[in-house]
Amino acid sequence: MSVTAAKGFTASGVAAGIKENGNPDLALVVNNGPRPAAAGVFTSNRVKAAPVLWSEQVLKGGTVSAVVLNSGGANACTGPLGFQDTHATAEKVAEVLGHSAGEIAVASTGLIGIRLPMDKLLPGVEKAAAELTAHGGDKAAIAIKTTDTVHKTAVAQGPGGWVVGGMAKGAGMLAPGLATILVVLTTDADVEAQDLDTALRAATRTTFDRVDSDGCMSTNDTVLLLASGASGVTPPAEEFAEAVREVCADLARQLIGDAEGASKDIRIEVVGAASEDDAVEVGRSIARNNLLKCAIHGEDPNWGRVLSAIGTTSATFDPDQLNVAINDVWVCKNGSVGEDRELVDMRYREVRITADLAAGGESAVIWANDLTADYVHENSAYSS
Amino acid sequence: MSVTAAKGFTASGVAAGIKENGNPDLALVVNNGPRPAAAGVFTSNRVKAAPVLWSEQVLKGGTVSAVVLNSGGANACTGPLGFQDTHATAEKVAEVLGHSAGEIAVASTGLIGIRLPMDKLLPGVEKAAAELTAHGGDKAAIAIKTTDTVHKTAVAQGPGGWVVGGMAKGAGMLAPGLATILVVLTTDADVEAQDLDTALRAATRTTFDRVDSDGCMSTNDTVLLLASGASGVTPPAEEFAEAVREVCADLARQLIGDAEGASKDIRIEVVGAASEDDAVEVGRSIARNNLLKCAIHGEDPNWGRVLSAIGTTSATFDPDQLNVAINDVWVCKNGSVGEDRELVDMRYREVRITADLAAGGESAVIWANDLTADYVHENSAYSS
Repeated sequence: MSVTAAKGFTASGVAAGIKENGNPDLALVVNNGPRPAAAGVFTSNRVKAAPVLWSEQVLKGGTVSAVVLNSGGANACTGPLGFQDTHATAEKVAEVLGHSAGEIAVASTGLIGIRLPMDKLLPGVEKAAAELTAHGGDKAAIAIKTTDTVHKTAVAQGPGGWVVGGMAKGAGMLAPGLATILVVLTTDADVEAQDLDTALRAATRTTFDRVDSDGCMSTNDTVLLLASGASGVTPPAEEFAEAVREVCADLARQLIGDAEGASKDIRIEVVGAASEDDAVEVGRSIARNNLLKCAIHGEDPNWGRVLSAIGTTSATFDPDQLNVAINDVWVCKNGSVGEDRELVDMRYREVRITADLAAGGESAVIWANDLTADYVHENSAYSS
Repeated sequence: MSVTAAKGFTASGVAAGIKENGNPDLALVVNNGPRPAAAGVFTSNRVKAAPVLWSEQVLKGGTVSAVVLNSGGANACTGPLGFQDTHATAEKVAEVLGHSAGEIAVASTGLIGIRLPMDKLLPGVEKAAAELTAHGGDKAAIAIKTTDTVHKTAVAQGPGGWVVGGMAKGAGMLAPGLATILVVLTTDADVEAQDLDTALRAATRTTFDRVDSDGCMSTNDTVLLLASGASGVTPPAEEFAEAVREVCADLARQLIGDAEGASKDIRIEVVGAASEDDAVEVGRSIARNNLLKCAIHGEDPNWGRVLSAIGTTSATFDPDQLNVAINDVWVCKNGSVGEDRELVDMRYREVRITADLAAGGESAVIWANDLTADYVHENSAYSS
């Protein structure tokens, strides 16, 4: 159902020829109102792709009539000419749909440092516009895939006759401050831009921002939330925020589950922290420890590498009070050997690490992946 | 020549049976004076192994009569009993050599979270003491290897009849704030403890502290510098500091060259930085980018991943002014496409990345390795 689960939206996905292999590579999502509003969250990487710079400006207006997304090229580090390409793409969508270019958001994903083939992309926009339908959400989700093995969509039903739906792509360069992810969420709830922004930021802070597959932050991350108002219902802020959070959490979990080369999804829960910031810092440090990620790949409950990662942070803790559980077996107690590591069953894809700092009552969950030879192979050969 | 290149030192390396495979695993380095003095630098990981906690106390006295080092077990995260084991080891060395335990430094390396087999280690100390000779430096260097494929030693000749020699081990968990490294440097120069400390800190700051093989910081890092005074010469401070830096740089380069699973050594030079701190922050961010490390492994001059890594830092720069060279080809100019990437020859083991922030006159060099399937294999199976 994806981005067309909500009333008031049409979408499409086509093969414009940007990808040399002929796979779908251009998606269009159009907000038909009646009361369009939008919010967006973008990468915190200081090297931002042209479409990010463009869309940040568009979102300041609080209205997005359409989003055009391409895979097959990130249009990042392409200089002023790359920005002109993004501008021309928005102009083309505006022309075809009869809107202003200032209301067209653009998102791109793929290799950095390569200009987009505009001679293919612009005709592709016409093709995508011709194929817009109220059930085109899945086709749009398929067209934004890069190294993703499956397309990702999610839907949450609000209690009052409105829905939040969405699509996402992302498989590598997945890390905090967002990831190489493109996400478009739509809703037919009648919500103003500022309230969309509040709900979206609250949701991404504890979902996409806490996915750390490989520690690498993208230049292109974009998460957009578009409201059409077509249900005629303005839900209570908390109900709406929860539905947005639910869809974001669902999509974030799907991203981790399809990360490049991964064989394990690692749920890292830090408890007993003096502050949420401490919990997040410790969780990220564990998530990024290559030696631990290799050990998890080898189904080795190597808790020493967890302690070593905790020790590099500035969080409040006493080394002699740290406890670590792997799949619920407390293999480390009071900073030293705990229960028998042979009791840990690591055969399944999901691995749960619990780190207890014994320093307070705050907690956080970070999702990561293991590090595998497949990840190395996939990323050694990506552009060559 | 190793730690016995300098006059006034004896050393040995034996197989005590700590390693199950029967390889050498216990080294002893003894300072016979006449004017013994010492300085030490230890891991900045807040989870410190028992021998680190012990040796930090010993070094406060400014005198180290002997260093006992074992491979085959890190004695980290072993609680109060692990600390007792370190204490008992120092007592045993003191007893055999006729010194005070308070002057015996201890260093350990190997798996975290495992008690040392003291029934093998303590007889091993007697055996090592019986084999001490003035040419035992290589045997000592061999006995501290873990996953190292070769032992590492270096020597620098001072202009006035004195030398600085040293040995090092380290192959994984190599990262700033030192690495899983054990280093013992010796000199027959006549230098007081405080001056040794100044020279050692200056040297490690730009050598071992700028090695970042895998982003993982150890619980056991120890770098010791022992002076015997046996040459009778007190060199000028700058001459002495340079000799210490030279030996540290040589050993640090050897560590990178033998890092676990690596096929490329990556020299990252950040230039045009507004401050040295900026240069180091950017260098480390590049060094730790798994996607870039995979690309280098694949001999792919993927400069977009360099820019993406720079963008995550807080250093002063304008994204549109960034320049990147790989093996001297400026593949990125002004934040965009530069010279033809096909010109980059990456066949050799050493790869040079130059990142120009165009924001000032400061610079720094960080050494890293590529990320390979062999690294994953080696670290998936290390403890299981």
